[in-house]
Amino acid sequence: MKAEIISIGDEILIGQINNTNSVWMAQQLNLAGIQVMHMCTVPDREQAILDALEAAAGRADFVFITGGLGPTKDDVTKKIFARFFGARLITDKVVLDDVESFFAKRGRPLSPINRLQAEVPEGCFVIRNKNGTAPGMWMEKNKTVYISMPGVPYEMKGMMTDTILPKIRSSYVLPHIYHKSVLTQGIGESVLSEIISEWEDQLAEKNMSLAYLPTPGIVRLRISTKGDDQQKLQRAVEQEIEKLKTLVGKYIYGYEEYGQESPSLAQVLSGILREKKQTIAVAESCTGGYISSLFTLLPGASEVFKGGIVPYNNVAKHDLLQVDPSVFTTVGAVSQACVEQLAANALVRLKSDFAVSVSGIAGPAGATPEKPVGTVWVAVASREKLHSVKYQFGDNREQNIVMTANAAINLLRKFVLGEI
Amino acid sequence: MKAEIISIGDEILIGQINNTNSVWMAQQLNLAGIQVMHMCTVPDREQAILDALEAAAGRADFVFITGGLGPTKDDVTKKIFARFFGARLITDKVVLDDVESFFAKRGRPLSPINRLQAEVPEGCFVIRNKNGTAPGMWMEKNKTVYISMPGVPYEMKGMMTDTILPKIRSSYVLPHIYHKSVLTQGIGESVLSEIISEWEDQLAEKNMSLAYLPTPGIVRLRISTKGDDQQKLQRAVEQEIEKLKTLVGKYIYGYEEYGQESPSLAQVLSGILREKKQTIAVAESCTGGYISSLFTLLPGASEVFKGGIVPYNNVAKHDLLQVDPSVFTTVGAVSQACVEQLAANALVRLKSDFAVSVSGIAGPAGATPEKPVGTVWVAVASREKLHSVKYQFGDNREQNIVMTANAAINLLRKFVLGEI
Repeated sequence: MKAEIISIGDEILIGQINNTNSVWMAQQLNLAGIQVMHMCTVPDREQAILDALEAAAGRADFVFITGGLGPTKDDVTKKIFARFFGARLITDKVVLDDVESFFAKRGRPLSPINRLQAEVPEGCFVIRNKNGTAPGMWMEKNKTVYISMPGVPYEMKGMMTDTILPKIRSSYVLPHIYHKSVLTQGIGESVLSEIISEWEDQLAEKNMSLAYLPTPGIVRLRISTKGDDQQKLQRAVEQEIEKLKTLVGKYIYGYEEYGQESPSLAQVLSGILREKKQTIAVAESCTGGYISSLFTLLPGASEVFKGGIVPYNNVAKHDLLQVDPSVFTTVGAVSQACVEQLAANALVRLKSDFAVSVSGIAGPAGATPEKPVGTVWVAVASREKLHSVKYQFGDNREQNIVMTANAAINLLRKFVLGEI
Repeated sequence: MKAEIISIGDEILIGQINNTNSVWMAQQLNLAGIQVMHMCTVPDREQAILDALEAAAGRADFVFITGGLGPTKDDVTKKIFARFFGARLITDKVVLDDVESFFAKRGRPLSPINRLQAEVPEGCFVIRNKNGTAPGMWMEKNKTVYISMPGVPYEMKGMMTDTILPKIRSSYVLPHIYHKSVLTQGIGESVLSEIISEWEDQLAEKNMSLAYLPTPGIVRLRISTKGDDQQKLQRAVEQEIEKLKTLVGKYIYGYEEYGQESPSLAQVLSGILREKKQTIAVAESCTGGYISSLFTLLPGASEVFKGGIVPYNNVAKHDLLQVDPSVFTTVGAVSQACVEQLAANALVRLKSDFAVSVSGIAGPAGATPEKPVGTVWVAVASREKLHSVKYQFGDNREQNIVMTANAAINLLRKFVLGEI
């Protein structure tokens, strides 16, 4: 089954609001086994709405429309909807009761404008709105189902969850869809695609597809499939992931399970630390507090995170974390010696089981011929061991901070797991 | 001038990612006086992309396309783009140089797949990509300009800001649009709207409109107008802002000038400190590194930011910042006494001119009957003065962190300016 989503509203087209309705609907439809093939946003104007309805005809089994159903003058969807189906508007008794009781409950008078909300195109299946006054409408034309809903997110969600999705599930046979994402750090999209090229090629014959979803330092690999038997699909995807692990296992830090959000690197590491009842400390120069903030964003952070120090200049590196001043005059603050002292001393100062430290040149200033912008040293320490790695990232300050944080947290994750 | 935005990507259609690219583009185009009439998202499939390009022809002056330009197999846009224009793909020397130096700088080998990124349709105006390897492409057909960009947000934004918008502004006559935003902190949208209600009502007769753009702790008020004479528009808006200042001046921390990005609170304060040649230190508990990260994100941060300490538990508050242990046993870590000691000692430890400290209950755990989730203490210190304020925010951990940071930085801004 194929679907399209039409959003109506000038506020989306001027960038004033983010179209979260279509994101949510796409998730729900995808979970239900309905493939969204097209999404569009059009202004609150008759011709634009009519054009969008007509463009979807023949392409989709279901067309989900949100917006333009309020009582104000700029809401024109219902009129267009009726015209598109060649139906006249009639007052629906059930909706009128709903609207009247909605206002009565709030002790507000019912205006003539509100009464108009009870009008629907003749012949439509009415979707009642428990969170507002504008009803939803379900109508069919040439085997395509058109479903019009209000643009207010909780009104739309209520209708989808209570009425529309159950009605679709009971009236149509839908395929099972399954996907799972493999989360990698430290390998670029292009290198990754070369390594897994053969594996990727054989997915098609198994009715699976692969998507690369990159953010700075991280690539998520999403494997999708559909069929009749959810458990069989899941097993098949797991088998492919096992093969993938043999190819790029050392870059994998976690998984995004079907229907759940991707865990962040800090979440994955925090989970490991919580299980081991171990703690960490952070000493960060070029990331300037960002690594600490990624851990402390998580509820219950204090169980695993003892604290952080941001010694942004050399004086602070010495005063707060006892870096030997000779380091600055010989190899400089962006060096193996510096990060190793930072990590080792952060461990002691913050009484943690592990520590991670970073020092680098985020840019745009601060580069030297030997240390261009993007040069970063990271060290990890425990009471027994010390390990450090040099990275070379790019030119963009913000990205360098994010990439350094991802590299540092993943290095610490491997260190905690005893993999390095 | 009319524009359409086409986003290409299965990840949007399954609801896996939010289409922030089109929100940002819509904002930028609106600012430039270009009206976005249609937005759509289509899958990474040849026919779907071709259909979208064809549908836009004749409707729009500009078509902005993002996504599907990466080096991997699921990226098909460039091929379709070439076919749509009946052009063959040729290797562009400048882009090849860019791609080669991108990899050389990172010490990574250039693969044959990466080399393909230098191919562009013959006759296209190439938009160089300083943040990645896929070039952008500008081509015209029957007076409609088609602009294809990568889907990675910072790559797309770099191209829009550096090349595409300047090229549009210099090549086309666009209506004069002017807007300026007033940035406020510490007052909610509804209270604000009541205070400025009369002022807001009289804007319409001056051909101006007002938009409220809220984020946690901050409300931007955007005043927009359009006409023939840019200077006249600007003067009229400035006059309205003067009136607004008399109503809510104490909440205003800055302005977003036309065509520029909103300065963050950290940017505004860093500018003031740089001018005064003064420095700050941060001691943050519940914000966990976030305040420091907001300052260190800014280029040249080391001129004003000496360092930060994240003493996430009581032991660290004592060990690193000498908070008297009796504080924890009497009034607790979320208290005036604690934040005042944190700020005063951070100033000394980090040898700065000013310090700010925060301690609070971000949630969901840690609340007591006297200190519900959202209770936050903030202190600011100089060598001469100490000042502290208690805040009560909400239930959401992430929002509490952001609201605390905004409140703390704005308090420090006023303190540095001698307003408190």
